Amino acid sequence: MTRTKTTFAPPVMEARRWLSEARLGADMPLINVSQAAPVDPPVLAMRQEIARLAVEEPQAHLYGPVLGLGGLREEVAAQWLTAYGGEIGASRVAITSGCNEAFCATIATLLDEGDEVLLPVPWYFNHKMALDMIGGVSVPLPVDEAMLPRLDLAEDLITDRTRAIALVSPNNPTGVEYPPELIGAFFDLCQRRGITLILDETYRDFHSSGAAPHDLFTRPDWDRTLVQLYSFSKAYRLTGHRVGALVTSPARLAEVEKYLDTVTICPAQLGQYAALWGMQNLGEWLAGERAEILSRGRAIRDGFGPLQAAGWRLRGAGAYFAYLDHPFDAPSDQIARRLVAEAGILMLPGTMFTPEGDANGQRQMRVAFANLDTDGIAGMIDRLAGFSG
Amino acid sequence: MTRTKTTFAPPVMEARRWLSEARLGADMPLINVSQAAPVDPPVLAMRQEIARLAVEEPQAHLYGPVLGLGGLREEVAAQWLTAYGGEIGASRVAITSGCNEAFCATIATLLDEGDEVLLPVPWYFNHKMALDMIGGVSVPLPVDEAMLPRLDLAEDLITDRTRAIALVSPNNPTGVEYPPELIGAFFDLCQRRGITLILDETYRDFHSSGAAPHDLFTRPDWDRTLVQLYSFSKAYRLTGHRVGALVTSPARLAEVEKYLDTVTICPAQLGQYAALWGMQNLGEWLAGERAEILSRGRAIRDGFGPLQAAGWRLRGAGAYFAYLDHPFDAPSDQIARRLVAEAGILMLPGTMFTPEGDANGQRQMRVAFANLDTDGIAGMIDRLAGFSG
Repeated sequence: MTRTKTTFAPPVMEARRWLSEARLGADMPLINVSQAAPVDPPVLAMRQEIARLAVEEPQAHLYGPVLGLGGLREEVAAQWLTAYGGEIGASRVAITSGCNEAFCATIATLLDEGDEVLLPVPWYFNHKMALDMIGGVSVPLPVDEAMLPRLDLAEDLITDRTRAIALVSPNNPTGVEYPPELIGAFFDLCQRRGITLILDETYRDFHSSGAAPHDLFTRPDWDRTLVQLYSFSKAYRLTGHRVGALVTSPARLAEVEKYLDTVTICPAQLGQYAALWGMQNLGEWLAGERAEILSRGRAIRDGFGPLQAAGWRLRGAGAYFAYLDHPFDAPSDQIARRLVAEAGILMLPGTMFTPEGDANGQRQMRVAFANLDTDGIAGMIDRLAGFSG
Repeated sequence: MTRTKTTFAPPVMEARRWLSEARLGADMPLINVSQAAPVDPPVLAMRQEIARLAVEEPQAHLYGPVLGLGGLREEVAAQWLTAYGGEIGASRVAITSGCNEAFCATIATLLDEGDEVLLPVPWYFNHKMALDMIGGVSVPLPVDEAMLPRLDLAEDLITDRTRAIALVSPNNPTGVEYPPELIGAFFDLCQRRGITLILDETYRDFHSSGAAPHDLFTRPDWDRTLVQLYSFSKAYRLTGHRVGALVTSPARLAEVEKYLDTVTICPAQLGQYAALWGMQNLGEWLAGERAEILSRGRAIRDGFGPLQAAGWRLRGAGAYFAYLDHPFDAPSDQIARRLVAEAGILMLPGTMFTPEGDANGQRQMRVAFANLDTDGIAGMIDRLAGFSG
């Protein structure tokens, strides 16, 4: 079987197909809560800066360093130092063509054919696809009632083929923020067992806590155990520029460099300049964005009553996502298609985030609510509460 | 062994290290013929168009389709039809984050662990690295005196694990253009044996022939056998934007889509808009660029006398590259380092394009001459002729 045949079609494309098949009435405009992406472009000042660079900066159009723009690597190191404390320098930071590529590069440095990575279920589907296509084995790690990965079970699931545990916090798809102590305990476990902790913090800019989300960077030799992943896409609305980051040891970055050179040579330059400008100039604006997203999360939690009454259950809500149990007898992928057709709501079913046949996945739905304002959220809850499955 | 440990460090980075170690006198400015990349940014009109889009086109900053911008796919199909004839539509074209990613995506749709791909030697090192990291086996295919891949040997080297033959024409590193009949014969061989022909035409815009470089697209069911790769980087000076293309069957593109979605989600949007604008507006300008590059190739061939006299041999010259045999007793990687230190010329040694220990590779050197004007080429030949090894 070829590499790509081992995995499934991109779920987001599948969802788009449902949409193109649906016939929505003019009285019921679509509520699209399927994709975790800003729908607005970057702020005007950033767009103008990109425009200025496009004309005036020749380097913005030419090959750059494989591991990314020096200035951007330094800025990430500096801001991480402020946010997390500890020991982080530019030589521990690489810039990638989006955070997905950061994950792909990481597992290429860790895995051989048949090696295993523990993924909490529900998982982020592109992590599963990446592991499939590199010949890795995704070992499902169950979560508890609070949707937190079970540390005790992780201990048992580690074999001599296990190379890493991959966590996402704030989590995609559940929106749950993993407590610093839990993240620390997973780090300890990985360190003790000589495996790597991959920590995807794509949604870190929308964490509800003002404090550091974990203390891993302050630990001695953190970079032997940890690979942290980040995306500039959500914070600065740069999804179309493909800029992510990866923070780990210089030795691992030398391996990462082989992968990045071979697959994309360097990240797109204009996007990197834009990300750097954003980090240096949009701190205050981003704080406002975060406050707005957090208020939307509260609107979901505070407004959930009518859904609770209709049998729905809120399993998690934070950053861009809410994760729900639906009350119906049918599997979630069927419910998702009916929701498009009958309620004009596009959300992704739990089946897209769980192993085939997983009973939990058939009950669950992901709501990427970040693009709905609080009125929009109230409207969605209304429609959902009126939907009879 | 992890995926990345199976392969070597990026040769271009290694060459940059040589450079940083060298101390060049002010009387001998560096002649850098190591990298196959334009050193100038795109023309001003294109930069202004990118600037306009950055401010006015919100989509330029947001996620686009996994397989690329519809308009760009259509434009490629239309221009290919004119250039090659045959049957090509937008549904057979995908846009990728550079041509390297197009190759990586292609082999992901073809290979399982241990499957084989025939690569003519000397090869393009990122092809070898990509095959290493996906768990594939690169089978060296010898070339003849004219640096053309040996069809007769290819026939014998195909086993039941062979999935593809990958050709690059005009070739990197040799600059040699494969005759249409030879490309056609390799297509026939692949079709007969049920394997795929990967044809990388990154340098097609600088082919010396005004006619179609092959007739493959006119053949019935071409898309079951052929995957053609292309790069917008060289023609439009868009190396820093990462835009390439891949032309094959819709069925294979559905597999390619899994890979692209997982690794980079979509190509950078601004670069795609720029490539489209370039295709629609820079035809005449590109014809001039081609004429200039062709004249530089001629300058190499016509001016080679002094090098011939010094024992050098010209093995190929075309598109961006000349490929030379040096006359010295030491292996080419040692010669390359001495050339930097003693003659102020940075070129890549044949050892970077050949299997470890390959005797031919130790004799050969690649000259990426495209950035030297004819005077610069004469200057380089002077210095080389005076270099005593």
